[in-house]
Amino acid sequence: MAANGSRGPGERDSIAGEQSVSDTRPTIAIIGGTGALGSGLGGRLAKAGYAVVIGSRTREKAEEAARAVGGTVRGATNADAAAEGGIVLLTIPWASHAAILAEIKPHVAGKVVIDTTVPLVPPKVARVQLPPGGCAAVTTQERLGAEARVVAAFHSVAAHKLQTDMKIDCDVLVFGEKSEDREAVIALAKAMELRGLHAGPLCNAVAAEALTSVLIGINRTYKVDGAGIRITGF
Amino acid sequence: MAANGSRGPGERDSIAGEQSVSDTRPTIAIIGGTGALGSGLGGRLAKAGYAVVIGSRTREKAEEAARAVGGTVRGATNADAAAEGGIVLLTIPWASHAAILAEIKPHVAGKVVIDTTVPLVPPKVARVQLPPGGCAAVTTQERLGAEARVVAAFHSVAAHKLQTDMKIDCDVLVFGEKSEDREAVIALAKAMELRGLHAGPLCNAVAAEALTSVLIGINRTYKVDGAGIRITGF
Repeated sequence: MAANGSRGPGERDSIAGEQSVSDTRPTIAIIGGTGALGSGLGGRLAKAGYAVVIGSRTREKAEEAARAVGGTVRGATNADAAAEGGIVLLTIPWASHAAILAEIKPHVAGKVVIDTTVPLVPPKVARVQLPPGGCAAVTTQERLGAEARVVAAFHSVAAHKLQTDMKIDCDVLVFGEKSEDREAVIALAKAMELRGLHAGPLCNAVAAEALTSVLIGINRTYKVDGAGIRITGF
Repeated sequence: MAANGSRGPGERDSIAGEQSVSDTRPTIAIIGGTGALGSGLGGRLAKAGYAVVIGSRTREKAEEAARAVGGTVRGATNADAAAEGGIVLLTIPWASHAAILAEIKPHVAGKVVIDTTVPLVPPKVARVQLPPGGCAAVTTQERLGAEARVVAAFHSVAAHKLQTDMKIDCDVLVFGEKSEDREAVIALAKAMELRGLHAGPLCNAVAAEALTSVLIGINRTYKVDGAGIRITGF
């Protein structure tokens, strides 16, 4: 676990307004976390007081990404990060999905695994192209085995906005089989100042996966800098 | 075509603020239009000054539904309505999809056909259950043939809200191959005081189709009276 005591109080102020770190907060491992989404989520969670470990194929690349995020974020191989994480967050490209999941599978049984995967098929990333089976999150569950508690979320949040301190006008649809597992992810979203919503079973994640291509297209068509979604009617 | 001249100016005030009827506006045929969505869309379009024909299996049932909507809305068999419509709007249940499309196919070549179909599979309507092929709108195109200009839209708008004059807090994602066809549907949405957005090719409609089950689940979980969506970031 991270040595929380080594952090000064000034660095500890949460963007969610919390002032102290609870030792009961799980360490968050961000697998494939060297990209924009991984560093955006990792930076916000670290600011909110979570211990964060960024995983990558090599420890060196992970440590470099961790230094770029700053604070107490650390780097490790994907397998080491997954072993250390209390919650494991996947920010991996669809093209590497099978290989990376095979690496971390031995380390995620019984853990909440947050899948952000969007099965984009370049170059036509604004066109919905569903993978075999339809839903990437369901494939994640199959590849990690039944003991992993897979929850899908954060598909629609613009990565470059997460990398700033700005308030993001976007809801987080949270998909998973168990209410308590979705609640754990909704709590993480709240720590990042995002509203998370229970959005049904894991297979429903296909809605958010497909919507990502729609949002990419809307960004292009309307020159929007990171379109998102809000659920209305509340 | 509808005898627009028979309507008094008082009845003709559009909810979009327009004061007169243009003869260039297409007649809107609403196939399977006796349900809540059909009558909601039909009622709003009629108030906005469009000639509307509700289609059903029998003329009697259609005329009864037309009287319930009121104004100048008329009823006809599905085939007669499709033949008369300049734009054909489908509000048909997934279970009757193939049979009704076969009936109207001879009458829709060259016309914009608006597909609102959501492939819900009762009783688990809050669970995304994609049809064979993935996207219902693509199936609609296949069943109507290449000459029909299929555009998918209005999946996420609560039917019972359309039946009132209330301002609805919901965007309309508009999917189709041709920009001009999507524009025609965006204009109809605007006449109903809804913001329509270009959302990419027809196959992208799977995002909105799947999202409908998510919204049904959110209505139940959070006791919301008709959740909708907004695209943010504009």
